[in-house]
Amino acid sequence: MTGASFIGYTRGSLAGPKSHAINPSTQEVMEPGYAAPSAEEVESAVQLAASAFPAYRKTSAAQRAEFLRSIAEEIEESADALAARGTAESGLPEARLRGETGRTVGQLRMFATMLDDGSWLDARIETAIPDRAPLPKADIRSMLRPLGPVVVFCASNFPLAFSVAGGDTASALAAGCPVIVKAHSSHPGTAELVAEAVIRAAQKCNMPNGVFSVLYGSGRDVGMTLVTHPEIKAVGFTGSRTGGRALMDAAAARPEPIPVYAEMSSINPVVMLPGVLGEKANALAEGFSQSLTMGVGQFCTNPGLVFVPEGSQQAFLNALEKHIKNAAPGVMLNAGICLAYRDATAATSRHQGVTQFASEVSTNQGQGSPMFFVCSAQTFLQSPALTHEMFGPASLIVIGSLDEITAAAKTLEGQLTASIFGTDDDLTQTPELLEIIERKAGRLIFNGYPTGVEVCSTMVHGGPYPSTSDGRSTSVGTMAVLRFTRAVAWQNCPQALLPDELKDSNPLKIPQMINGKRA
Amino acid sequence: MTGASFIGYTRGSLAGPKSHAINPSTQEVMEPGYAAPSAEEVESAVQLAASAFPAYRKTSAAQRAEFLRSIAEEIEESADALAARGTAESGLPEARLRGETGRTVGQLRMFATMLDDGSWLDARIETAIPDRAPLPKADIRSMLRPLGPVVVFCASNFPLAFSVAGGDTASALAAGCPVIVKAHSSHPGTAELVAEAVIRAAQKCNMPNGVFSVLYGSGRDVGMTLVTHPEIKAVGFTGSRTGGRALMDAAAARPEPIPVYAEMSSINPVVMLPGVLGEKANALAEGFSQSLTMGVGQFCTNPGLVFVPEGSQQAFLNALEKHIKNAAPGVMLNAGICLAYRDATAATSRHQGVTQFASEVSTNQGQGSPMFFVCSAQTFLQSPALTHEMFGPASLIVIGSLDEITAAAKTLEGQLTASIFGTDDDLTQTPELLEIIERKAGRLIFNGYPTGVEVCSTMVHGGPYPSTSDGRSTSVGTMAVLRFTRAVAWQNCPQALLPDELKDSNPLKIPQMINGKRA
Repeated sequence: MTGASFIGYTRGSLAGPKSHAINPSTQEVMEPGYAAPSAEEVESAVQLAASAFPAYRKTSAAQRAEFLRSIAEEIEESADALAARGTAESGLPEARLRGETGRTVGQLRMFATMLDDGSWLDARIETAIPDRAPLPKADIRSMLRPLGPVVVFCASNFPLAFSVAGGDTASALAAGCPVIVKAHSSHPGTAELVAEAVIRAAQKCNMPNGVFSVLYGSGRDVGMTLVTHPEIKAVGFTGSRTGGRALMDAAAARPEPIPVYAEMSSINPVVMLPGVLGEKANALAEGFSQSLTMGVGQFCTNPGLVFVPEGSQQAFLNALEKHIKNAAPGVMLNAGICLAYRDATAATSRHQGVTQFASEVSTNQGQGSPMFFVCSAQTFLQSPALTHEMFGPASLIVIGSLDEITAAAKTLEGQLTASIFGTDDDLTQTPELLEIIERKAGRLIFNGYPTGVEVCSTMVHGGPYPSTSDGRSTSVGTMAVLRFTRAVAWQNCPQALLPDELKDSNPLKIPQMINGKRA
Repeated sequence: MTGASFIGYTRGSLAGPKSHAINPSTQEVMEPGYAAPSAEEVESAVQLAASAFPAYRKTSAAQRAEFLRSIAEEIEESADALAARGTAESGLPEARLRGETGRTVGQLRMFATMLDDGSWLDARIETAIPDRAPLPKADIRSMLRPLGPVVVFCASNFPLAFSVAGGDTASALAAGCPVIVKAHSSHPGTAELVAEAVIRAAQKCNMPNGVFSVLYGSGRDVGMTLVTHPEIKAVGFTGSRTGGRALMDAAAARPEPIPVYAEMSSINPVVMLPGVLGEKANALAEGFSQSLTMGVGQFCTNPGLVFVPEGSQQAFLNALEKHIKNAAPGVMLNAGICLAYRDATAATSRHQGVTQFASEVSTNQGQGSPMFFVCSAQTFLQSPALTHEMFGPASLIVIGSLDEITAAAKTLEGQLTASIFGTDDDLTQTPELLEIIERKAGRLIFNGYPTGVEVCSTMVHGGPYPSTSDGRSTSVGTMAVLRFTRAVAWQNCPQALLPDELKDSNPLKIPQMINGKRA
């Protein structure tokens, strides 16, 4: 490991100011130091991406699928090194790093399979009607094409699956867009190992120089330079609301505004209904405790808010208290996140009308301790601060009548997920509540907790603002490729000049919608 | 006709400041005066739309299709009145108004057919795998759902097809979004007639009060109030770049930013290649003259820029000069547009290195006179001002080598369309030029002029900024419905609570993608 940025196929200099990863379990400063790229190096990465785009957008779907599969293989080759470095940089257990490696290569292969299939392109053909009156109809065909170079910001909480070769990178490369990654300062070594894997794959697959770069340095400096650069055409980001909104505002203020796909914050409300609480309060409490504390609560889909109907709460709360009292604190991703968690939970604990229940296991430096808070729906409705995310293993339980819960649900901001637990009877009796949470969220979960995001063709991991910048898209699953594409139409184009995907002969044998009907 | 806004099913007051349409052919002030709504009336229209949304989003696709077809029928009932009032307000000939009425009702029926078919929803099902190791797979299903109340700004140049019940309104209503229209001050009477038709249809079809409103008043006041209102979730606009960008900036600065689909300006470059010019310069010039002068050049797709290879230009220019000398001036849509056209063409005519060729037919007040300008590629490359849109029947012909034309094409901003004329030999010899124009435009046209936008499933009437605010979408054709939707996922939802579109039994018999395969 060298500590230098990846400027296409060359490495940057080590002259810039260096930053080091800090092992959050031991507070050890880890070598090497990672050098911020110079302004010239950032510009060079962008120009390489821009010059790679014409060649990369012309690659066949089969070539890009091979590239993605090759990246997956190269990452698997580095699995042991990633488990070691990733564990040290993130404080996450080795099993989690290995599982996340599996998810990351699975995502890459999913997009490769999507490229093989071709239906994602939405290839459409309307054939000419030369003798139509009063005017002839032209032959018009359309399909999705890539936007151009994309910047991807790594997330702190998924050092692999939402980082250098994570979902945004995989979907952008699948679409035909060169990618420049801004590495996260918490896990620069993990980033370097993955970047080396991607570069090896790109060279093996003869991809154009500049199809992929990874830059170290600060978000405010390097990140903003990238987002405001005229050659950059879209941005993917997972992180804080402050950071995401700053990128959104900068992108919207450009002479040519560009889309920013920022996943920012979500408290992922859970609604418990009376019937199911009567049937299995203990099991619900156990499941909730597991969902809340998994990964030290550092998931975008962590359940940070639970509505429990008044009169049905006691068995659930009693069981939950037992689980949380014995739940082990865990090392958090970095000192900043740990501090923010302690501040946020301290603020909630000081809030009038709020009772705290916390783990009784002793906490060490850098660790987050599981806890929950309880308040009435009236308190919740009067306190907008209680809807703020506490990123970590803490949740707020709100007790109220079903009417109060419905009223509280109406006040919620946009969310990645909303969960509802109920018997069939419970659920059929609450149509208004179901409708409200559908309007607030990207994914509705029935009788399940929100953690655990399936990577598949139906996943929507997105939601109305402020859970994401743009509720029209997802960062997980095959639909994520739509972020980095636009439809283009060809009118009366000679067959020989059409993309293969739109030819009458359909040489790639992909699904085509012909004259309004899917074949 | 009363001159009052439509606040859902009631009419606004006539107390506000009034503005009148002015017949651009006669300068006659037309009655009635149209009253700006009060702030309370604007708020009331928004609240009605917000309160209509829960009911309207629950309507079946069949109900919304019936509503759209009923609007089409009601507009047809008003066809004579629309032809009379529309002609007087716009200066467009009656045949155009009648043709545009046909297009407008055709669009509405196209979206109704799309609703019948159901494939637009992108209904997807992944079934559960309870025994998957290491973790079971949940049942996850997704489809598109409406965003919420939408604001649509009417365009001056299409008093019907891009106005009260035009493409944006039709696609938003199809998606399940209530619509508030901001009428255009140039054709308020036409707007009133169409609004009455929509309201009659809404009442016949028992649509919730507030599903549709039309407000008069100024864009800066009423329009901005709407765009910045928290209950509004998306905006459709067709107009000037200044106006569109102002809406984009206001929407991006909201506490909850929302998408703005603004179609703003485009000079629609046309490239002529040497072979085809050698074969049929006269026919090309005649076709160009027709495309340029149709509708007094007031189309978003008017060909404002033509590249002609040096050495092949003379026959084309000679023929074009003849056609334009004899071309009749036409009444422009309003005094502001006419003045802007005269200013823009005067500025071009004063530009060093530019030669003007204009119609010799005398021009009356309010009329725009056809003309074209000729300059060298060198002049063009040195003068960014020459890329400014001259909205009306004027175009700039740029003469240069193929290398210069390629260099000039690279400097162009985003466009709605790009056209290329060539023999098969011409076209196969210019791959770089073809690629450059594909990256700049939403629609590529081979051997045809850009005016005439087919309303169909493959049309892309959109393009990279600044031709539109968001090159990922189209304002014409069935894909326009995607503007006003977002995907939502249901995880482990009981069959009875799923939308019909996602049920195993598929009662609506719509296309479903099941486990990654389209049925």
